[in-house]
Formats: sequence, structure tokens, C-alpha cells
Amino acid sequence: MYKINDNYLKLPGSYLFSTIGKKVAAYSAEHPEKKIIRLGIGDVTQPLAPAIIEALHKAVDEMGNAETFHGYAPDLGYEFLRNAIAKNDYQDRGAEISADEIFVSDGAKCDAGNIQEIFSTDNRIAVCDPVYPVYVDTNVMAGRTGTYDPKTETWSDVIYMPCTAENGFVPELPKETPDLIYLCFPNNPTGSTITKEQLQEWVDYANKVGAVIIYDAAYEAYISEKNVPHTIYECEGARTCAIELKSFSKNAGFTGVRLGYTVIPKELKCGDVSLHALWARRHGTKYNGAPYIVQRAGEAVYSPEGKAQLKEQVAYYMNNAKTILEGLKEAGYTVSGGVNAPYIWLKTPDKMNSWEFFDYLLEQAGVVGTPGSGFGPSGEGYFRLTAFGSYENTAAALERIKKL
Amino acid sequence: MYKINDNYLKLPGSYLFSTIGKKVAAYSAEHPEKKIIRLGIGDVTQPLAPAIIEALHKAVDEMGNAETFHGYAPDLGYEFLRNAIAKNDYQDRGAEISADEIFVSDGAKCDAGNIQEIFSTDNRIAVCDPVYPVYVDTNVMAGRTGTYDPKTETWSDVIYMPCTAENGFVPELPKETPDLIYLCFPNNPTGSTITKEQLQEWVDYANKVGAVIIYDAAYEAYISEKNVPHTIYECEGARTCAIELKSFSKNAGFTGVRLGYTVIPKELKCGDVSLHALWARRHGTKYNGAPYIVQRAGEAVYSPEGKAQLKEQVAYYMNNAKTILEGLKEAGYTVSGGVNAPYIWLKTPDKMNSWEFFDYLLEQAGVVGTPGSGFGPSGEGYFRLTAFGSYENTAAALERIKKL
Repeated sequence: MYKINDNYLKLPGSYLFSTIGKKVAAYSAEHPEKKIIRLGIGDVTQPLAPAIIEALHKAVDEMGNAETFHGYAPDLGYEFLRNAIAKNDYQDRGAEISADEIFVSDGAKCDAGNIQEIFSTDNRIAVCDPVYPVYVDTNVMAGRTGTYDPKTETWSDVIYMPCTAENGFVPELPKETPDLIYLCFPNNPTGSTITKEQLQEWVDYANKVGAVIIYDAAYEAYISEKNVPHTIYECEGARTCAIELKSFSKNAGFTGVRLGYTVIPKELKCGDVSLHALWARRHGTKYNGAPYIVQRAGEAVYSPEGKAQLKEQVAYYMNNAKTILEGLKEAGYTVSGGVNAPYIWLKTPDKMNSWEFFDYLLEQAGVVGTPGSGFGPSGEGYFRLTAFGSYENTAAALERIKKL
Repeated sequence: MYKINDNYLKLPGSYLFSTIGKKVAAYSAEHPEKKIIRLGIGDVTQPLAPAIIEALHKAVDEMGNAETFHGYAPDLGYEFLRNAIAKNDYQDRGAEISADEIFVSDGAKCDAGNIQEIFSTDNRIAVCDPVYPVYVDTNVMAGRTGTYDPKTETWSDVIYMPCTAENGFVPELPKETPDLIYLCFPNNPTGSTITKEQLQEWVDYANKVGAVIIYDAAYEAYISEKNVPHTIYECEGARTCAIELKSFSKNAGFTGVRLGYTVIPKELKCGDVSLHALWARRHGTKYNGAPYIVQRAGEAVYSPEGKAQLKEQVAYYMNNAKTILEGLKEAGYTVSGGVNAPYIWLKTPDKMNSWEFFDYLLEQAGVVGTPGSGFGPSGEGYFRLTAFGSYENTAAALERIKKL
């Protein structure tokens, strides 16, 4: 008789955003007359930029013609896209990454979930607390996290690094030594970021203790301040200790288009074994490439027109962030984030816990956000709002919140 | 110090098709004047059908407009696509599968590789020999296959089910009891198929011993004969023992578009645990949906125009299959497959082994095929040709082969 992977049974409840979806659906069904404004899941709302639409149409036409049809893509992704990424996201910033160190994929969520597969299940992971749930949940599924304590909502074998108001939502080096360190800056969910000097400390630490940093830079396009690193490879020594994950979802609105990439430098080795070679093997065996038309859309992100249009799109969302930040401050909330990131992190008022505030905001203002506790125990008493709505909805949501 | 997943180090050499790609590239570099005809990897060559191109353009336009823009897709896939699949691929054939038992993905290769994750690493797998390498390789990566014996090219903990000329390339029930049974019909690589009565025996067996059949029906569209099941759910009892994988790559030319789906019936349970729920959790945590525009393209596969156009496309490839079958017979080869499948399986002549014949065919005829031994030890002495080239190239390849 077959058996299941019983690590799955250890997972408490269902995935955070599924739970929110169900709560909102139930509320909508009961109150069909109420217009709900969603500032929760971090999904974008602006249409794809014209340069991207044009690239998609062109690629679709190519697929309709035998001479220009494209079948299976190269394992690592098309060179035209990997070259554009290497040049624009790395080399132009002085970060030494070459096209053949880039693995194109269907999104950073998948890569964030799959990357742990090339590591031993004995490895100990360290995560920020609060944190994007995918890092921990996928390690639970792999059997790397020990047992769950429902009282503290923590796993026995996970090293949690609290990110709180006290440390400016930037983690301190852990007391116990981890093997894999997940870092995400600009941060989801807190919207905080890290200076280049602070990140350099992490790189030095990882090289010293023999850990790998899995650096999620999905929100890099939202950086507005100087001295905030756009990639971990701006730091010296990162090529021997860091994997970087990038997404096209937030800088180009690709949440429904699906494109991302992972960088593994060739110097990143465990003894003699190249992690680049392991990930190439996984990519070639368990994945079959991002669609040709989507990779052409990705290329258009780096065209002069694409860049200009997406700069405007990011500015649009960052204007929303400013609207939320200022509106919340005006309403008396304690807030952070929203300057180098599309997320605003607020302290729930009146000692409400995160889910109480979720229900309160949904029922009283018809506004959906994300409970901070869904991201980890140190997120309790916090709440995340995103800048990815339309300006009209964002402004309307803030008017409603101010009236509470 | 972190450690890697050392199961990866057990994998012998690199992925079959990567090796072929490298050999062909090396040959091309040395002989730039020679026109190589590729009847190897099983990649399609015909352009996307007009109905699909139209659906793609329409969906691209929707993505360029705020009112019709689509962000994150629903976890299981859009209902419009799941409904079309449930009706056309199952209900219209009398197979009782509902839309919410269908999980849309970016392709059957990924699903074939990922599905093992929801099972215990203690489970014992059974595979046909020869077999599509992804089934075994992904189980190696998960640590489920024991040790590799390079002499026999087999894994100590895998149950191999030889598919040979003697049994008509249809496996017999294994002597040792497996937990997971991978079956693929119409078969890759042999092009053989199975009757409904034969498949019913497998379903009865799986239910009796408590095994799960992972049924890969990627080539279903090529079935031309009666009494060949189009889905395992035509068999009684399959809902309690079978998972089915389907691809849009071969019936609609989506190798570079990326779309597939997995069916897990709600009755499929291990004790109290629903495999549907486990896969839903994996899908929601490690995957983020197929692109909206691609799902619309998938919907067009089931439109009246799409169906008519794709029937022609399949007929085009099957005419190639006939050309290969008849040409090889004329040239004195022993052949099978090619009637209900786009693959022709030939016995290598003059006691050449599979890779010797690969080199011989590449060097003497400029034709690329796939060595049977790459699919497993019982594939030694065999060779796979695919019908997915253009008619002109296929006919030219056969002329070259006849002249050898």
C-alpha cells in the first residue's frame, strides 16, 4: 500500500492567501451590495505596458508561421532574454553576473519554492519573521522544519529572525548557525529595506559560516533611495554564497503573465559540487521552459520604450503607496514601509490582533488587507496594505479608513 | 556548513535530450555544410492553428486594458478552461471527471516530475522499460530509487517492467508489488498502446494491491484505432487508484506555449487523506498558475474551429508516421508503433547498439533520432523516430535512410 508524504499533514491550515480569498468570497456572498476594495494579495491592477503588448502580438504572429514557430525553449531560457537581464539588471550596475548564470522560469514563487530541492533535507533554514509564507511552507513539505508548535506558531528546526519596530524591521545575525538563509529586500511584508553595508555583513557572515543566502529581490524596482542595493551581487563575496531570485510580476505587471529568473553564480560551490550544475539539472528534468511569447514580453521590459513605460507604472503604484502612508498617518496609525517598496506595514490599533483587524477592516470599511500574523509570529499586531490597487480605489479605501 | 541533496550526484550523466543536443551541436559545428534532419526530441514543427493564434491575440489585447487585465490566476486554473477540459476530454467520452478535479499547469513534464512529491519517499515505483526518463530521474532526485548499477543501468529500488517485442511492448503485472506505477499510453518511446481490457487489468490490480497509477496520456490525440482507451477513467475503478497527466504539447503544438493538466479524482484517498487536497496544497504553494493568455489558447483547442484545425494537424503528423513506417519497412527494418502514436520504434540493424546507430544515422544520413537505450535497458538495440518533423523533411530523411 502506497504512503503519502506526511510532511504535508504537518502544515497548519491552508495557504494564507487562500484563506483570505475564502473569507472575502463569503463576505461578498452575504453582502453583494458592498463594493470591496482589495489591498491584500499584492496582485497588480495596471494593464501591461504598450511595449509589452506589442512584443506579445509580434511573438504570437511568429508562432502562427512555420518559419518563425518556436517549440521547446532552451533549458535555461532564450539567450535574447538572458542577455538583456545580465546587461540591465547586473552588468550596468557593476554586478558581475553573466547570461549563463541566469535561469529563466515561470516566476519567483516557483523558484522560491523549488530552490530548496537541491539542498540536503538536513540543512537548517533561517527566515525573517514575519516572512513570505512560501519559504517556510515549501521547507515543511520537504521535511526540513521539525515539529510545529501551534502555541507559538513556530517550527522546532527553523531559526526565526524577528524583524520588529525595534530593529527597524531588519534582522540581526542569528545566534544559531543556519545553512540556508532566506532574505527578501525590499521586504515583503514589512516594506522595509536594507543598506548596502548591512547586506555586506550578511554576505560576510554567510561566507564565514558556510551558509547560502537565498536572496529574493522581487521588489527591487521600487527602490527609490540611494545606498539601497538593487542586487546582492553589489556586495563583495556574494558570488560564493548567494542565489538571487527575481520576478517580472511587480516591476512589469506580469502576475498573470508568469516570468521570473534565478541567478546562481558559477563560483557557488559546496566542496566540488557546483550549485549551478545542480539547479541546471533540476531545471532540465522537472521544468520545460517559459513560453516563447512570454520570454519575448520579458525582453520588451528592457527596451527603451518598455523601460520608460514601466518607470511610469512603478511611479503610479508608488504614488498609491504615498497616499496610503500619508492617509494612515493622518488617521493616527503607526506605519512603516512604502518608500522603497509597494507594501505598507501598519500597527493594528486598539490592541486588536491581526485577524481581528482584518475582519474589522473588511466589515467596517470593505477594505481587504493581509493580517501580519499570517507572515509569522512577529507579524502579530501588524497588517499589510499594498499599493497595487488603482489610484481611485486606493484613495477611496483611505477615505473609508479615515472615517472609521 | 550547508549540504546539498546528494541524490543528485547519483544521477548518471546528463539528461538524455541534453546529451543528444550536445552531440548534434558538435557535429553541426564540424560539418556546417550538412543539412541535419531532426526526428529526435519529439518537438512539433507545425505552427499554432489559426483559432489558437486568434485566441492569443484576443487575450493579449485584454491584458493591455485595465478593465480586462488579468493578474494572478486561480490556483487550479481558470474555470473556462477546466470546464472545457472536463466536458471534451472526459464527460463526452463517458468518463466521470468534473472540472474541480482538474489542475491546470504549465505542462505534463513538470507535472510528471512534481507529482511524486506528494508521496512518501519510502514508496516503491514501477516503470515500463524503456520509459520517458523524467519519471525515474525525478524519483532519483527525491531519493526513492536506491543505488545505481552502471552495468545493468538500473536502480536497486525501482521495479522495471520490460516492454519488448515478445509482449508487444505492453508490460506485464510486476512480480514485486509497487506503490506507484507509471504508465504511458500511447507509449513514449515505443509508440505502442494498450487495449481497454488490458488497462482494466492494471486498474483492478492497483486497487487490489493499494497502488496509485500515474497515467501519462500525453499522446491520446494520436489514437486511431477502436478499443484503445483515450483516458484511464474509461476503466471501472480508476477513480480510486489513478492520476492522469495530459499535455497540450502534442495535440495542439504547445511545446513552446506550455500548458498541461493533471486529474486527481476526489475518491483517490490514502486512508482519510485526499490526494486531491495534497496536490492542491502543492499547486497553491509551489506554483502560481499558467499564464492567462495561454489558458485562453487552451480553451480555443476545444472550440469547433480549433478542433477541426487540430484534427488536420494530427493527421499531418500521422501521415509522417505512415511515411516513416512504410519507408523503414521498405528498407528492411523491423518496426512498431506509429499507428496510434507519433513515435516509430525500430530495431537497430546489424547488431549495432542504440548509440552506435545514433552516430551512424547522424554521420551517414544527417538524421537525428533518439537512442532506445536512453529510455532504459530494454530499449538497447532500439531507436525512436518521431513524426513531428515537416512532411518534406520526413520524406527526405526516409530517402536518405533507404539509400544507406
